[in-house]
Amino acid sequence: MSQALYVGVDLGGTAIKIGLCNAEGELIRTFEGPTHTDQGADAVLSNIAAYVKELVPPGSDEWEAVQGVGIGIPGFLDIPNGIIDFSPNLPFRNVPVKQIMEEKLGKPIRISNDANVAALGEVWGGAGRGVEHCVCYTLGTGVGGGIIVNGRLLEGFSGMAGELGHMSVVPDLEAIQCGCGRMGCLETVSSATGIIRMAKDAVDRGDRTSLSLVTDIAAKEVFDAAKAGDEVAQRIISRAAFYLGKSMAAVAVVTNPQRFIIGGGVSKAGEFLFEQIRSVFVKLAPESASAGVDIVAAELGNNAGVVGAAGLFLRA
Amino acid sequence: MSQALYVGVDLGGTAIKIGLCNAEGELIRTFEGPTHTDQGADAVLSNIAAYVKELVPPGSDEWEAVQGVGIGIPGFLDIPNGIIDFSPNLPFRNVPVKQIMEEKLGKPIRISNDANVAALGEVWGGAGRGVEHCVCYTLGTGVGGGIIVNGRLLEGFSGMAGELGHMSVVPDLEAIQCGCGRMGCLETVSSATGIIRMAKDAVDRGDRTSLSLVTDIAAKEVFDAAKAGDEVAQRIISRAAFYLGKSMAAVAVVTNPQRFIIGGGVSKAGEFLFEQIRSVFVKLAPESASAGVDIVAAELGNNAGVVGAAGLFLRA
Repeated sequence: MSQALYVGVDLGGTAIKIGLCNAEGELIRTFEGPTHTDQGADAVLSNIAAYVKELVPPGSDEWEAVQGVGIGIPGFLDIPNGIIDFSPNLPFRNVPVKQIMEEKLGKPIRISNDANVAALGEVWGGAGRGVEHCVCYTLGTGVGGGIIVNGRLLEGFSGMAGELGHMSVVPDLEAIQCGCGRMGCLETVSSATGIIRMAKDAVDRGDRTSLSLVTDIAAKEVFDAAKAGDEVAQRIISRAAFYLGKSMAAVAVVTNPQRFIIGGGVSKAGEFLFEQIRSVFVKLAPESASAGVDIVAAELGNNAGVVGAAGLFLRA
Repeated sequence: MSQALYVGVDLGGTAIKIGLCNAEGELIRTFEGPTHTDQGADAVLSNIAAYVKELVPPGSDEWEAVQGVGIGIPGFLDIPNGIIDFSPNLPFRNVPVKQIMEEKLGKPIRISNDANVAALGEVWGGAGRGVEHCVCYTLGTGVGGGIIVNGRLLEGFSGMAGELGHMSVVPDLEAIQCGCGRMGCLETVSSATGIIRMAKDAVDRGDRTSLSLVTDIAAKEVFDAAKAGDEVAQRIISRAAFYLGKSMAAVAVVTNPQRFIIGGGVSKAGEFLFEQIRSVFVKLAPESASAGVDIVAAELGNNAGVVGAAGLFLRA
């Protein structure tokens, strides 16, 4: 008999990535195709099925060895029942994904939040290997999170455990409204979107900054300007780092992790960002909850999602 | 053979409470005696041993049936090794409690943080019965906390999980220093001590309040004044409630509990306090993390500690 295999799906707003993992959690190969959100939920689910079959041809020995397909999905989910309640960036509302995909593929399906799944991937095979208590932040368009306690992914009462982007951290006077409807969420300042917004605001206000010469500001340009000494850009990055560090200090007295792992596009800013986060964290967290605690970069990059999604079966 | 029994010890700054529980977690009887912190660590530990033996006479059938003694201790602990690193209100520094007490009693000993243990007691036999994910706040001299995930007490990397009193929640401009050395901890505004401090500050400032007639203000008087319509007292209680609700909104996106349980002296203020906390929580937490979530009073009162300490063995 062939070795057991596991498929992981990372469902994103623009691309669907599929990965095939062995029982050690090693990634054997991947396949990627467009999501086509504009074609609606049915089309997106059919695309997932097609891409899975592209990666692992039905009828092959590998196909027979696949024990299950895990899917990481951005949005609010009913995880036990495998239903997408609502997804801000995908055309899903009350869609029973587990049931539909089990019919399409004839394999057991599990779903979980995409950021949770990326966290699981990092713990399974990346920067969190062997760490019993860790917390992952994914800094991209939004801020996602994943909480690992006692080596296991924490989902919580309603699947909202680790929704760290929606921790209210910005004081009222400076708070703006988040996409979720609440005020002052971490995501409004520490995501790529938040950094870009703060940069555009500064340019619009007429602040003296090299960013006023950039036609279409991305987070990377704000980091580059900050590293080159632009004070306005530095202030923006410090603000993003401050609220990240502040949220970590809060997390430190809730689940008391040994390691914080930061991934996503914004984390590519590297040590420049990390040093500032660490300094805030150490200032705000009690010493007993900060001593010996690492704040490190994710290792698996874009593959964390598929490795973690495959892990929904292997590590359940 | 007799039924298995479990002893729980609640070690406080003024009194030591001992409880004997059966295998169902029911409290059979308790014994209470003074701590005598002024006599030093050795005397305190000898007192614990004497009170345990007072409750369950060595040589009796009950004594033989005791499977272990759990001790809830305020302070920073090395839980796996059974050592008290430091306790703000007790004369302990680097004391190997587990080893010493095992020698004194000849029974297996486990220690844990007092607030964690009270949380365990509430979940085992009180307001958290049957709830897989809940979080307890103990509002007393300080603010303690306990986190239950998947039905188990979370201790974290260094035993600091659930140290909710030291979540930094008060913005810089209004923050004062906490006993832990950090600024703006929840404990500085939402403990009995914090409420009393705010009341005294108001009186010293000359604010128009009935509290200026009280010679030795306790938290209860501030609540009574607020309920009677005193606006200054109401503002103080609203502030304590606001930061409690804010910290709960942060916890809601970390471990996503189904229930928050509030105990300790301050919780006796009842619905007057709870309604304000709920309203802040619902405003600041994402709807998916607040819908269906209860904020309720603890049920076991002063017995939560001994029941939970006994549970360190039964529910490990």
